[in-house]
Amino acid sequence: MTFSFKLHATDGAARMGVIHTPRGEIATPAFMPVGTAGAVKAMFPEDVAATGAHIILGNTYHLMLRPGAERVAALGGLHKFMNWPRPILTDSGGFQVMSLSSLRKLTEEGVSFQSHIDGSKHMLSPERSIEIQCLLGADIQMQLDECPAIPIAQDKAAESMRLSLRWAERSKRAFAEKSKPGQALFGIVQGANYEDLRRESLSRLMEIDFPGYSIGGLAVGEGREEMFRVLDFTTPVMDADKPRYLMGVGKPADIVGAVARGVDMFDCVLPTRAGRHGQAWTPDGPITLTNARFAGDETPLDPDSSCPASRDYSKAYLHHLFKAGEYLGPMLLSWHNLHYYQQLMDGLRAAIAERRLSDFVGEFRARTGETVL
Amino acid sequence: MTFSFKLHATDGAARMGVIHTPRGEIATPAFMPVGTAGAVKAMFPEDVAATGAHIILGNTYHLMLRPGAERVAALGGLHKFMNWPRPILTDSGGFQVMSLSSLRKLTEEGVSFQSHIDGSKHMLSPERSIEIQCLLGADIQMQLDECPAIPIAQDKAAESMRLSLRWAERSKRAFAEKSKPGQALFGIVQGANYEDLRRESLSRLMEIDFPGYSIGGLAVGEGREEMFRVLDFTTPVMDADKPRYLMGVGKPADIVGAVARGVDMFDCVLPTRAGRHGQAWTPDGPITLTNARFAGDETPLDPDSSCPASRDYSKAYLHHLFKAGEYLGPMLLSWHNLHYYQQLMDGLRAAIAERRLSDFVGEFRARTGETVL
Repeated sequence: MTFSFKLHATDGAARMGVIHTPRGEIATPAFMPVGTAGAVKAMFPEDVAATGAHIILGNTYHLMLRPGAERVAALGGLHKFMNWPRPILTDSGGFQVMSLSSLRKLTEEGVSFQSHIDGSKHMLSPERSIEIQCLLGADIQMQLDECPAIPIAQDKAAESMRLSLRWAERSKRAFAEKSKPGQALFGIVQGANYEDLRRESLSRLMEIDFPGYSIGGLAVGEGREEMFRVLDFTTPVMDADKPRYLMGVGKPADIVGAVARGVDMFDCVLPTRAGRHGQAWTPDGPITLTNARFAGDETPLDPDSSCPASRDYSKAYLHHLFKAGEYLGPMLLSWHNLHYYQQLMDGLRAAIAERRLSDFVGEFRARTGETVL
Repeated sequence: MTFSFKLHATDGAARMGVIHTPRGEIATPAFMPVGTAGAVKAMFPEDVAATGAHIILGNTYHLMLRPGAERVAALGGLHKFMNWPRPILTDSGGFQVMSLSSLRKLTEEGVSFQSHIDGSKHMLSPERSIEIQCLLGADIQMQLDECPAIPIAQDKAAESMRLSLRWAERSKRAFAEKSKPGQALFGIVQGANYEDLRRESLSRLMEIDFPGYSIGGLAVGEGREEMFRVLDFTTPVMDADKPRYLMGVGKPADIVGAVARGVDMFDCVLPTRAGRHGQAWTPDGPITLTNARFAGDETPLDPDSSCPASRDYSKAYLHHLFKAGEYLGPMLLSWHNLHYYQQLMDGLRAAIAERRLSDFVGEFRARTGETVL
């Protein structure tokens, strides 16, 4: 019952494989729906699994504040708590401390902050982050890191990246003490959009040695082209035998382009967040169902889908549900979007296995009109 | 393919039977979940059916305003629109015009009013109400009536009841013109809490002749004891061969007591509305999951339930979902409560069939502490 990654096929830089965990296998490239506060928003866990998701993400920041990591542990861990027996990845909490909490103070030790919920004071250190992730019982855990926005001056980016490296070492030591067999800790590559900093970060992380590596500090406002430019000089120097996780990404076109550049894992709130706001992804791009042109449209989002949300309800009905403020609108569109994302990953995996990724990307680009490569 | 009602068993005044409609059978006593605006709130229609619901209710007032009856008809009718192929009952719209709209004016012709959504002006007459219900495609339709609150002076109650009778005649004529084979129109007994008025209303309605009769004007603030007193002198004079529908009722104890008094059909927003606000019905009465005492309670609502919502999630998790404002909280508790209600109806039907209703009621009273008889 150990954590391992096996590559099954490659097509150019793109990779198709499987991550093995004690709680189940994860086919890669994989998209992880986000279960921020112990639930994938507006989704039953069975339906999340039925879309084809093999793993979901939980947010350490949200869960440490409410209901609390010790509470979740006392209730049998996050898997049992949220009725999701399959693998769970947790982030370190660092990113959301910096974006959501108030009165943050970052030191060598960690980040002290006040809860955005009740103003209570907390300290998140590399050690405490690992302790929390182990209390939650996460199968794949993240080191605490600092995640600066782009643009950032090179000396500041270097300083921040080196702090994250020191935290990587401390995280690994804490994980060795607290974790259970089969759980895995990923190191996080930082360095903003500077090639030499990314290389330095990666080479030091590989010396520390992790079973997987995350690419952090992207999707922070730099734009798709710049993100792809960073990936172009980052993934080629990453260990081919370890899974690569691009954190917080992204739109379908971001994912397609990153898969083509050798990324294996993704997470994003977009399918559920957009779903709650009336936006549906289709093979031809996103549509906004609150738009008046759908008021009389009796066609479903996808008549041939295996997903009931995509197949069994007209666009006119979805339009109505959002106009009427019915829960069922977000429920159906979150489901549809998660299914769309998993279908996309399925298509990417099949295309890589059959070495026809460039055709797949070409068709995706033609149908969506998106810039991918 | 006609509408019919067959009694299978009685126990005292209580009745167990089946309503046959072209869209399926309805075992009675039946509880109808309310799909106000074309959706049972926070529920997938498949899950509504899986709780054991054979029929749901749609609200004419809401649907005529949004998306509009003609729109629903153009999209293939309400069943197709909301993906519910089983029977649907609609109310006349009258009750909600009086409770929700503004600038209401009631005349012999009908009710003119302004929409609570956009201020648009509308007229609801007996004929227009039937036209709307036929456009929606409702299997069981209601005559337009006036539904005064209790207490009301007897002369006012009589005047109102006689207006409803004249509207009953007009509704029946309109229904004869507009309806499809197999659809049914119910007359509505009014007369507040006055025995002679209820008798007059019923006897005139039976002359007009309907395939079923609703008991209106109850659950409008009179209290359980007074409602039961009215039922005690109303149901005994109702046609034994026709279904009896007590509109807008109610709490489990209301339903149990009304079934014991010979009522066959019920509808109420309570299971879904209470579910959205963190209240769960259990065999021992309702509990409020937002209460702090559930924060660490690892037991589910019902470990032996066939309903996933009742069985697969701890009270601590449900507590957390409501504290965190997650959609999944209302989704799970609406589901649980609807399942509880249908289990209650199942228990009532079995008890009547086996002539042990008084034992059933005794046990219900003992466990819930509710006054029923």
